[in-house]
Amino acid sequence: MLPTSTDSALKIATPSRPGWRGLIEEYRQYLPVSKETPVVTLWEGNTPLIPVPKIAQTIGKGVEVFVKYDGLNPTGSFKDRGMTMAISKAKETGAQAVICASTGNTSAAAAAYAKRAGMRAFVLIPDGYVALGKLAQALLYGAEVLAVKGNFDYCLGSVREMAEKYPVTLVNSVNPYRIEGQKTGAFEIVDVLGDAPDWLCIPVGNAGNITAYWQGFGEYHQAGKSQRLPKMMGFQAAGAAPLVNGAPVAHPETLATAIRIGNPASWEKAVAAQQQSQGEFNSVTDAEILAAYRLLGSEGLFCEPASAASVAGLLKVKERVPAGATVVCILTGNGLKDPDTAIAHSESNFKQGIEPELKAIVQAMGF
Amino acid sequence: MLPTSTDSALKIATPSRPGWRGLIEEYRQYLPVSKETPVVTLWEGNTPLIPVPKIAQTIGKGVEVFVKYDGLNPTGSFKDRGMTMAISKAKETGAQAVICASTGNTSAAAAAYAKRAGMRAFVLIPDGYVALGKLAQALLYGAEVLAVKGNFDYCLGSVREMAEKYPVTLVNSVNPYRIEGQKTGAFEIVDVLGDAPDWLCIPVGNAGNITAYWQGFGEYHQAGKSQRLPKMMGFQAAGAAPLVNGAPVAHPETLATAIRIGNPASWEKAVAAQQQSQGEFNSVTDAEILAAYRLLGSEGLFCEPASAASVAGLLKVKERVPAGATVVCILTGNGLKDPDTAIAHSESNFKQGIEPELKAIVQAMGF
Repeated sequence: MLPTSTDSALKIATPSRPGWRGLIEEYRQYLPVSKETPVVTLWEGNTPLIPVPKIAQTIGKGVEVFVKYDGLNPTGSFKDRGMTMAISKAKETGAQAVICASTGNTSAAAAAYAKRAGMRAFVLIPDGYVALGKLAQALLYGAEVLAVKGNFDYCLGSVREMAEKYPVTLVNSVNPYRIEGQKTGAFEIVDVLGDAPDWLCIPVGNAGNITAYWQGFGEYHQAGKSQRLPKMMGFQAAGAAPLVNGAPVAHPETLATAIRIGNPASWEKAVAAQQQSQGEFNSVTDAEILAAYRLLGSEGLFCEPASAASVAGLLKVKERVPAGATVVCILTGNGLKDPDTAIAHSESNFKQGIEPELKAIVQAMGF
Repeated sequence: MLPTSTDSALKIATPSRPGWRGLIEEYRQYLPVSKETPVVTLWEGNTPLIPVPKIAQTIGKGVEVFVKYDGLNPTGSFKDRGMTMAISKAKETGAQAVICASTGNTSAAAAAYAKRAGMRAFVLIPDGYVALGKLAQALLYGAEVLAVKGNFDYCLGSVREMAEKYPVTLVNSVNPYRIEGQKTGAFEIVDVLGDAPDWLCIPVGNAGNITAYWQGFGEYHQAGKSQRLPKMMGFQAAGAAPLVNGAPVAHPETLATAIRIGNPASWEKAVAAQQQSQGEFNSVTDAEILAAYRLLGSEGLFCEPASAASVAGLLKVKERVPAGATVVCILTGNGLKDPDTAIAHSESNFKQGIEPELKAIVQAMGF
């Protein structure tokens, strides 16, 4: 039997506060689903919009800053928003297997939703290139990981060809349902704020998410749910900034691995989002990303380095934020995905070898 | 300025769907807070209650099983529920520093909330005992970690003495506000289901959480929010099962480190919860915990090994689940906290060295 949300709701008594039902049920009217679509959900979405007063104070001018903490999705990243759609639609067509080339968040999300739906989940990666730790999630969900003696581009080409010739559905970012699911992040922001923010700051790698948010804000505005549209502020890592440079980057480099992309799949759509919204693309250095990452830590928020690019970018252009503006920065992934960066780049607050006496401990505390 | 939820709400327009405000605001009338309490929140709580149909089918008899996925709290565990209370109350008394002895989830939660509130956060650990990876979160939030040449019991004694003699607030589990916050997990379950479940399955280590849930179900029942009370089913790891044995365990051992505790702080209260609810304590082996951990993975859920004890326990006593019962299992922490266990204990689905030809890849897929 399918683990659909309908099954599970059968026997529930009338709840006093029914709670979130997953993003497809919540936003069904805005999504390409029908009554026949089996909803494969992990109750994704509904992630908190959290004020970050220290960051707001850095900007001043009465500006209010929130982060959309999408790392609290079930597999730890915004990819779940797209994957609940991609897997539900794959299930609707009777697919029994899905495939993607991914070394990170996409593989985790694909594996979780596909296995929940009772499908096989194949993940192609370049042999010898990926640390096993990055695959912990996909393996635990039950993905079948295939390490091929080729580079990442070869893997991407293979999965496309595979999906054309064999009964396996492609769930990489070219799958159109991914963007449909991801646009719900914009809906949630408007639902909580009562309108769109003035600025939407977002990390840009493959450019699918900035495309999805712009689409979401547009559709909600059309539906009369918001008065205004935000400026879309897209931030790339300085070593992987094709949209800022206006040309692909042959060898993208940044410690923010989730946005280390030289030739974004959604290039044109991202440019359209920036132009239509009178927004900007800009780049931030790895040092700026790490500074924002630590600043977010001091607000109690642990995100992936790539996520911090949104805040790093905001701080870089803070002189141009209008007085009194409302700004939302997207934090795309959970910091727990990358503990090594936290250890390597925390401010050193680790004192060892303290004698087991209250006096010695008190002294180490600086009391 | 304090990063309170009140500050942040100031300029928000009237929202169409205002969303969750953090558990203190949502359950204020049930919590020991007043208008004077500065609410230090990361929008914790409101974690999804997710049906797990494969597990339900294993039991049969029309039983419905949900997991309360508390690993989606902001620092990745249920500890955030208690810590929003403990830190808000510490702030109310003017505390400028907090301290705890912890190598895991408590230190992460304490650090996140304390730093958000602008306090110092001290974490005592036994020198040379703790892998740095376990401290990644606490360090990133900005905790000051002190490794003392003593064992864990020495650290616990030290922080208690420190809190008595110096201006630093203890936020270990003896802090009474922790239980107050944690009881809101029970409220959320009743709010979504419309009543309490028949069974509540929960991992038991220090026994604070089973105590808190029982208190929460009781208070909500008293307030007329539920018709019934659940049986409290507490599950311990076989190598760390003092409540099952009826005696402390001198050298507790289990791979489920979050419940590796030989002498629980809330012993008497946990026994009271079990007796008053006509529930049970039982133990599960590490092998049973790992089997449940993988089964949860196949439902798309990645939890800490200790969390899986609740499901392992349910499966162990499944013959005794009443037909048609509603069962909720608590998943206390996010699996991303412990990627090593996922890698070591996934079913091996990792094929390497595949030739870069479609034929070879297809063969490896078994197509």
